[in-house]
Amino acid sequence: MSDVPKSVDIHEEGPREGFQISVKPIATTEKVKLIEALAESGVKQIDSVALVDPKRVPGWADADDVARLIRRRPGVRYTGLWLNYRGLERAAALPLDIIGVIRITASETFSVRNTNRTIAQTIDEQRKWLGFYRERNIPLEWGYIMTAFGCNYEGDIAPEKVKAMVTQLVTLADEFGYPLPGVVLADTVGMGTPQKVQRVIGMIRETWPNLQLGTHLHDTRGTGLANAWAALSLGVHQFDTTVGGLGGCPFASSKGAPGNICTEDFVYMCEEMGIATGIDLERLIECARLAETIVGHPLSGKVMKAGTRPKSLAA
Amino acid sequence: MSDVPKSVDIHEEGPREGFQISVKPIATTEKVKLIEALAESGVKQIDSVALVDPKRVPGWADADDVARLIRRRPGVRYTGLWLNYRGLERAAALPLDIIGVIRITASETFSVRNTNRTIAQTIDEQRKWLGFYRERNIPLEWGYIMTAFGCNYEGDIAPEKVKAMVTQLVTLADEFGYPLPGVVLADTVGMGTPQKVQRVIGMIRETWPNLQLGTHLHDTRGTGLANAWAALSLGVHQFDTTVGGLGGCPFASSKGAPGNICTEDFVYMCEEMGIATGIDLERLIECARLAETIVGHPLSGKVMKAGTRPKSLAA
Repeated sequence: MSDVPKSVDIHEEGPREGFQISVKPIATTEKVKLIEALAESGVKQIDSVALVDPKRVPGWADADDVARLIRRRPGVRYTGLWLNYRGLERAAALPLDIIGVIRITASETFSVRNTNRTIAQTIDEQRKWLGFYRERNIPLEWGYIMTAFGCNYEGDIAPEKVKAMVTQLVTLADEFGYPLPGVVLADTVGMGTPQKVQRVIGMIRETWPNLQLGTHLHDTRGTGLANAWAALSLGVHQFDTTVGGLGGCPFASSKGAPGNICTEDFVYMCEEMGIATGIDLERLIECARLAETIVGHPLSGKVMKAGTRPKSLAA
Repeated sequence: MSDVPKSVDIHEEGPREGFQISVKPIATTEKVKLIEALAESGVKQIDSVALVDPKRVPGWADADDVARLIRRRPGVRYTGLWLNYRGLERAAALPLDIIGVIRITASETFSVRNTNRTIAQTIDEQRKWLGFYRERNIPLEWGYIMTAFGCNYEGDIAPEKVKAMVTQLVTLADEFGYPLPGVVLADTVGMGTPQKVQRVIGMIRETWPNLQLGTHLHDTRGTGLANAWAALSLGVHQFDTTVGGLGGCPFASSKGAPGNICTEDFVYMCEEMGIATGIDLERLIECARLAETIVGHPLSGKVMKAGTRPKSLAA
């Protein structure tokens, strides 16, 4: 247990993930309200908008407006998601923090069906992003590997395949003179288990012992926090999470199907184990309740229902 | 990871836990229907009824009728919960399987408030149960320790205190000539974390390396499956779970607040890791949907919403 980190970095993805799939139209001001409340709770990085085709993702047709309206809190990074160079240019023209990331998918089928690009085409696209970062002296922070623990089209993804993806990311970064500081392993479709997480991390660590590791875990089948504990116990210190468990499949969202691992449940678990998050949990729970009101259906988060500790202890 | 068991024993507690707290009155035949469906899915032990005061737990006023109506499937054990000698006698007069268990609570305050008995008085009560088992040659199977990972009145429970409880259970069993085969650690109020689970198990293993260990984990704050993985990774092989995540606090049940760890989410996690459960997961998911229909509000289980694997894989 000595590998468990003393603190974790939490990247809040609730606004971007949650509003992207909302069936109900949500007012721009409500989106901004949640982002600002999250910043007040102590979250230091908030994925705030998705800069994608409004025809495909109508929930983010107002991304530019949201980005412009946020009253920025010092020390907080407000990021956006882009999937192509046009989205990156759009993000750079807005008051957003441009974090240098590159993204590839371990599953060729998922890559083609989800982004309309093969893995080879994706790598070419990433070269454009890297050129953009290089020109503007933006540091490269993370390489993302989507479907690292399974794919809804291809099934299991072998740890060796994920390792090959890390090699591709390292090589790609190197072409542009960047050392790759870290890799985020994304369980895009929620097929991970603690053992898969530990096997993949173990294999990466053998070859790149100094590479920072993060996870982006979807809690589709309830294993999210178990997978997070598996990662924590091997020293992973960066976690993408969503307040209230926002996100998930649009068609299932009204039934309370979960998205990413829930920020406040993860913060509760960490803080109870003495792992610092820098977040005020009670304020974060208020954010989860606000998110629930905004999306208009119950969220899957549990601490927001049970409270941090039984009330009698507060007396 | 070599300690991870090859198979697990799952004790389904959904009917007893779920109907005990239901706000809505539930027909006796519906209760029986769920119990029978669970047996068909491959579950080998089902806590089916609570033999308690109907004034305190009106949801189980029909416990005797339910026990009598179950069409028993061979190889399945149908158990009941009792909290005093009168309940045990009532159980023994019904077509139920009497499993030899003794129960104590690590928190004195919880013991008094929940059962109206001090720990010392509880131990005296257990002597009556042990006498009953002895007379009828019923094997002693488990000693339960409630609030093993925290108490809503006393807060943290030190692992040393849990260890002292194990000593008490071993001594108590010995008075009646029983070796104590195993101990179930119950996170009665859902305050456990993976580290707490591992610390308590580690401490018990040091003194009693051959004692079988089980867990009864409530998922009140979302850490349930992470705690289960922590236990699995240390070789624990017995788990109390509830279908759909039935149970929880009565006042919160209509909001989807969780009870115990969800049987089908746990079965999914185990089977994906090659840990045999003996349960047909697809049939179990049907049971979870049936349970949701019977209680009339959404349950917290996730696999029942997402399915076992993305559908495209089945093609």
